[in-house]
Amino acid sequence: MARSKDQTQKLKLGEFNLIAEYFAPLATAPGALGLLDDGAVLTIHPDQELITTIDMLISGVHFLENAEPEEIATRLLAVNVSDLAAMGATPMGYLLVTALTAEQDNDWLSRFAQKLEKDQIRFGMVLYGGDTVATPGPLSLTLTAFGTVPKGQALKRSSATIGDQIYVSGTLGDSALGLMALREELPIIDAAHRDFLINRFQAPQPRVNLGQSLREIARGVADISDGFVADLNHICEASQVGAKVFADDLPLSGAAKAVIALEPSYLSTILTGGDDYELVFTVPRESQAQIDQLLTSLDVKLSRIGVITEGKEISIFDSNQKCMSLDTMGYKHF
Amino acid sequence: MARSKDQTQKLKLGEFNLIAEYFAPLATAPGALGLLDDGAVLTIHPDQELITTIDMLISGVHFLENAEPEEIATRLLAVNVSDLAAMGATPMGYLLVTALTAEQDNDWLSRFAQKLEKDQIRFGMVLYGGDTVATPGPLSLTLTAFGTVPKGQALKRSSATIGDQIYVSGTLGDSALGLMALREELPIIDAAHRDFLINRFQAPQPRVNLGQSLREIARGVADISDGFVADLNHICEASQVGAKVFADDLPLSGAAKAVIALEPSYLSTILTGGDDYELVFTVPRESQAQIDQLLTSLDVKLSRIGVITEGKEISIFDSNQKCMSLDTMGYKHF
Repeated sequence: MARSKDQTQKLKLGEFNLIAEYFAPLATAPGALGLLDDGAVLTIHPDQELITTIDMLISGVHFLENAEPEEIATRLLAVNVSDLAAMGATPMGYLLVTALTAEQDNDWLSRFAQKLEKDQIRFGMVLYGGDTVATPGPLSLTLTAFGTVPKGQALKRSSATIGDQIYVSGTLGDSALGLMALREELPIIDAAHRDFLINRFQAPQPRVNLGQSLREIARGVADISDGFVADLNHICEASQVGAKVFADDLPLSGAAKAVIALEPSYLSTILTGGDDYELVFTVPRESQAQIDQLLTSLDVKLSRIGVITEGKEISIFDSNQKCMSLDTMGYKHF
Repeated sequence: MARSKDQTQKLKLGEFNLIAEYFAPLATAPGALGLLDDGAVLTIHPDQELITTIDMLISGVHFLENAEPEEIATRLLAVNVSDLAAMGATPMGYLLVTALTAEQDNDWLSRFAQKLEKDQIRFGMVLYGGDTVATPGPLSLTLTAFGTVPKGQALKRSSATIGDQIYVSGTLGDSALGLMALREELPIIDAAHRDFLINRFQAPQPRVNLGQSLREIARGVADISDGFVADLNHICEASQVGAKVFADDLPLSGAAKAVIALEPSYLSTILTGGDDYELVFTVPRESQAQIDQLLTSLDVKLSRIGVITEGKEISIFDSNQKCMSLDTMGYKHF
């Protein structure tokens, strides 16, 4: 684990070693070498492939500047584990870069590391190594996650096929509405609904078990991080297909329904808002029975919301079977 | 490869996809999935283990704010590959996070990506995936590098043994002196010497071939990134030993000798300055013949500079066999 020379001076954390203090207890695998080395050693079973992904979170961009260290730790691990889930991987471990400002003191580091430890245990992961640097800029955290899949069974975005049914897990839009609630940009709703939405934003639940269960069933798979329409579009672009979606079939929480009842235009937030960390995936028509079986064994709802079509367009139909315009909903192609 | 929604707006790069434009050409392995997916798939040969490491570079902290994109690309890959070299790994590929400010335009990205491509080819690596985000803070780049070693042969810091000979590759301190030259903090020296030192700072050469050659020879190994004394100390701490070093035996370039001749106090910069990206390693006395053989097959000098001792201290002896004080040289324990 690399250590910046300027660490001690700039972070004013005193003489002791912050890596040994806060992060070494999280590095429980032999391959982490006690965080004493330049790198880590990962042994991959011959029947498995390694899945790896990296995501960076910046204060003020990917989380609110006043976010608590526990919330940042949870989000950091969750967004990366969600990418593993989308590929059907079993989480294994991670590398961590903390770029800290003068504001992160011992208390902050202790709370951040304790929440990381709690979450990594939940996902069956260990810390393998990382880098700790002092930054003049905003606090940022970067995490590289590792998982494994049986050889040849990694789920991909690029395998959606015309005629496939499109499913999503859980409910859509809660997280984007929760962020708006935190920013006081939402109409006044029931306190329990408000708390539910904020919790969905602050504590995303990556669909790890679902991803693993989809290994031999699903074709095009993505996690919903950029927003439902954008991530379905990633599947469509990678698979060179289009999609037809029925707005009435989109799964909404009671809280999201309450918001829509007050102001129907929030449907665009739900469709394009992002940070859901649900999975959107396609399955061949003949696999529907397997999906129904999953519903009984998993603790997450799966909703059929559309079908893969020819062409390159995503069309969303309202309850009157009228095609809704994505442009007016603020959705932009990249 | 994850894409931030705010990318297009904040970076003003127009409608086209910067990942497809600049980074997809670097992702030539099948496991990179054309950068279209949530993660990458790495297949590790059953006889091999995966070595992985991560390092972040921040503008103004790890490179000068006016550094050219080519220099940043070279440094970014080199500092991570140097960690692989220290563990004896054969480089394989990498994940990349670019956190870009409004200053990085198409020209910057194009030059950065082209230099990365050139260097990755030299090291036999490919881009496997990453993340591209917009940041209000300083430009930063984070790279996770992957390499492989035959099972059980990873080099470690923790295996140095009392009586081992201590070696370093190349010459020490050039990079730290080069940085001082760029900052106009160095006495006036010959222009060729100045250029040599600056080049050693701007274009570090990780010792990949040496690392692989040391697999069955060396015991405690580290790359010199934090500074010669600090990195030797990492070996000593991890191995629970001490070290005796003879200052006269430290390998210095002609340029570094010229600086010392003008002002002997620069020896402290050489010992503690960092960014050398040479290897410091220990070998048992009986393996000296193998080191001599390496000297004929490798294109880098290896110098024996000391011996591993009992205790926990590093003692550096001057030409009069007097022990030099590390404290007065500005070296601080973490």
